[in-house]
Amino acid sequence: MASSSHPSAPCAACKFLRRKCIQGCVFSPYFPPEDPTKFANVHKIFGASNVSKLLNEIAPHQREDAVNSLAYEAEARLKDPVYGCVGAISVLQRQVLRLQKELDATNADLIRFSIQDIDF
Amino acid sequence: MASSSHPSAPCAACKFLRRKCIQGCVFSPYFPPEDPTKFANVHKIFGASNVSKLLNEIAPHQREDAVNSLAYEAEARLKDPVYGCVGAISVLQRQVLRLQKELDATNADLIRFSIQDIDF
Repeated sequence: MASSSHPSAPCAACKFLRRKCIQGCVFSPYFPPEDPTKFANVHKIFGASNVSKLLNEIAPHQREDAVNSLAYEAEARLKDPVYGCVGAISVLQRQVLRLQKELDATNADLIRFSIQDIDF
Repeated sequence: MASSSHPSAPCAACKFLRRKCIQGCVFSPYFPPEDPTKFANVHKIFGASNVSKLLNEIAPHQREDAVNSLAYEAEARLKDPVYGCVGAISVLQRQVLRLQKELDATNADLIRFSIQDIDF
């Protein structure tokens, strides 16, 4: 049984790996058969064995978040094989620096205005 | 030969995988023997075969950046098995939103000051 909502269909991982989807399959709650790309991506970047090991090492209530973050990383790596999601981190870091600089400058303008108001 | 700077030592990848480090080894320029952790991390998260495939699919001049981004992702996943470096992306995204909001408010204050100055 893949999951309660798909009693007869194997999960996307077992279908991809051409194996029987047994009850308690570590992949089935997170890789529904209707989304085969999610597993294909994660498999291509991390490998089924590494994902299975990782899932078994973390608490069941955190596995969905783990799978979703792995799927995000895998998709980013397939789109950008050189930087993957580290590219997004660099863009965001630059954005934070730019905004912080702009905020500092605006605050300095505000202080200048306040001083002018006191002077008048 | 592992690399020109280490003519006799196998690279960290070949040492880890207990294989002969041949001339033209795809790993040796990016995994020097003096940094065994870099390869161990990347191997644990992505697997040697996936990393080798990825390196062979990208241009040689981009391979160093690719290995460094993989090493960054691997280290982040080992530190935080649930979110990996996607956790850093979430933190940065929240930081950008907070700074943008703060900047908007400061700009609004600045406009208010300017209008007051015109009124007087």
